[in-house]
Amino acid sequence: MSQAPPPAAIVGADALRRFTRDVFVRVGMPEADAAVVADVLVWADLRGVDSHGVSRITMYLRLIDDGDMNLTPSMRTRTETSASVLIDANRAAGPIAMTAATSAAIRKAREAGVGLGLVRATTHTAALGYYTLMAAEEGMATIALAASGPFMAYHGTRAAGVSTNPISIAVPGGRHGPVVLDMATGVVARGKLVQAKKTGRPIPAGWALDRDGNPTTDPQAALIPLPVGGPKGSGLSLMIELITSLLAANPIIAGALEGGADGARHRQNGLVLAIDVGRFGDPDAFRSEVDRVIAALKALPQAPGALEILMPGERGARTLEQRTREGIPLPRAIVDELRGVAARLGVTSLPSAL
Amino acid sequence: MSQAPPPAAIVGADALRRFTRDVFVRVGMPEADAAVVADVLVWADLRGVDSHGVSRITMYLRLIDDGDMNLTPSMRTRTETSASVLIDANRAAGPIAMTAATSAAIRKAREAGVGLGLVRATTHTAALGYYTLMAAEEGMATIALAASGPFMAYHGTRAAGVSTNPISIAVPGGRHGPVVLDMATGVVARGKLVQAKKTGRPIPAGWALDRDGNPTTDPQAALIPLPVGGPKGSGLSLMIELITSLLAANPIIAGALEGGADGARHRQNGLVLAIDVGRFGDPDAFRSEVDRVIAALKALPQAPGALEILMPGERGARTLEQRTREGIPLPRAIVDELRGVAARLGVTSLPSAL
Repeated sequence: MSQAPPPAAIVGADALRRFTRDVFVRVGMPEADAAVVADVLVWADLRGVDSHGVSRITMYLRLIDDGDMNLTPSMRTRTETSASVLIDANRAAGPIAMTAATSAAIRKAREAGVGLGLVRATTHTAALGYYTLMAAEEGMATIALAASGPFMAYHGTRAAGVSTNPISIAVPGGRHGPVVLDMATGVVARGKLVQAKKTGRPIPAGWALDRDGNPTTDPQAALIPLPVGGPKGSGLSLMIELITSLLAANPIIAGALEGGADGARHRQNGLVLAIDVGRFGDPDAFRSEVDRVIAALKALPQAPGALEILMPGERGARTLEQRTREGIPLPRAIVDELRGVAARLGVTSLPSAL
Repeated sequence: MSQAPPPAAIVGADALRRFTRDVFVRVGMPEADAAVVADVLVWADLRGVDSHGVSRITMYLRLIDDGDMNLTPSMRTRTETSASVLIDANRAAGPIAMTAATSAAIRKAREAGVGLGLVRATTHTAALGYYTLMAAEEGMATIALAASGPFMAYHGTRAAGVSTNPISIAVPGGRHGPVVLDMATGVVARGKLVQAKKTGRPIPAGWALDRDGNPTTDPQAALIPLPVGGPKGSGLSLMIELITSLLAANPIIAGALEGGADGARHRQNGLVLAIDVGRFGDPDAFRSEVDRVIAALKALPQAPGALEILMPGERGARTLEQRTREGIPLPRAIVDELRGVAARLGVTSLPSAL
């Protein structure tokens, strides 16, 4: 498919993190929270998940302006059991709410073997893999879900009915590090549609519908992404809404589809489930077995045209290593956005590379 | 795709359940266990999941003959925490091990909000939706996973590297009953490939590889199913192996791919995670919200050619209702198999319709 445009700038992760933090501090976020948001966004850029990196800063600022993201939330525990916590995030930035839920899930799992962190009323959760990886690095096998508003087709319809709600699963690893799956329930990430629009190249059949719900390969007309595997992808997305938003008593889809004013507002919910590997067996044996299955899969004969047999998250881990060393490439559009943000808010720490 | 062959017989669920129970009792399974196996298998037939119904009886008998399925297992708890149980199933029949794990998960969830039942060393888990539905009917939002041996292509390879490991998610429902997603991680169920082989109709491109790992549309050559969504399906399947088999300290994939004698033996592992809906909010409100989102999705404009907008599990629930009333249609091949089993084992309760 479409190639990424050549980068307009290459910037170091530390400088980009500092700038991102300063932006959110400038608009009124406590410094510790702003540092978390910056870390989560820049992590996505480091991993190559550019759609969830600093390209989201302008969206976050808009959520703040609209009153949907709360700069100074009073997050509180609504329900607590021996193995679970339901946190009302009070519209905190996603990274704040989700790291809190992940920490709670890890803490509970250490006590009870399994720990559940449910998040009610967060905002854009950012890259879900950040949280499952965070828990995997603490010895936890982890599942995370995030639920958001409808923009993907529900199977059998020709309209946006569900989100591309992601699921992420991570486990501790051995010499290859944790294995981290982070997948949306759509055929392709929304970012790929956006990118195709920019390059103008036709998209493959089966990726998206146009505004009238007709299948299209025209990148300018493509609007509604299709679910992966038809009823599987849209079914999984719906179940994520049910098991996350409805459990947290903050339904998203129904209100949005009914068209009321409140239903159109941005909000998300999240779920992090951690299982303490060491409670069920020898964690070192677990890690060795992860290495063993990776070795067995990598030894299989490659498909024609496949360059390499990759594990979930392996490409991202490699990109992170490379970009940590060489810097993060940013396209023209994002460089311009960040310059605009710096100028508008008077943030002076715009990295010199930008 | 291919139509099902016309049924050779239509049999009542009770009679089929009785016969199935008698078969397993005859080969030495305790009556209570045989009744559970019969209930789980016939449930799949009632739901229209024919690939997981009584068509599996001959496979189960073979597993018993081979010493892979233990008729009189001593299942025991290996690890127990306040919110979890790891059960060593000692090669029990899947339905025995999985119903035990589901009961344990429900019990733990009532105490701790969330409950995890891990199963080590079970055999064919049968239809995973049975267990999540069982928990949903007890007011639990439930996730279940099952891990088995490699026969699906891992993305980027042209060989069987992973299983079509299923994931099932169910939640309590309102007037429509529980919503139950039960999906394999392959593009299509293995049963559809088997059926295409019988009818001889070409299969769609993207469904399967032949024995040499080349894509094929020839139903006779199709051997290795492809994962749904490429790296998504095979990545999800791998994570199910990691979070189920490795947590239970009973790895399946690595040994099977390495080709040792032990690796080729049939074994599975399972995971059931139950969340007590009532601990986090009003369960009646939860049920109403399930109805609300179903109504909103069903009101969306239908895709051209779609007859109806269906929720996960809705078709199965309807088939169950119809087949409970009208009986279960069985094709010629299965009727012949069951007759053969009855004759060979001297089981006299073969339903008269057969």
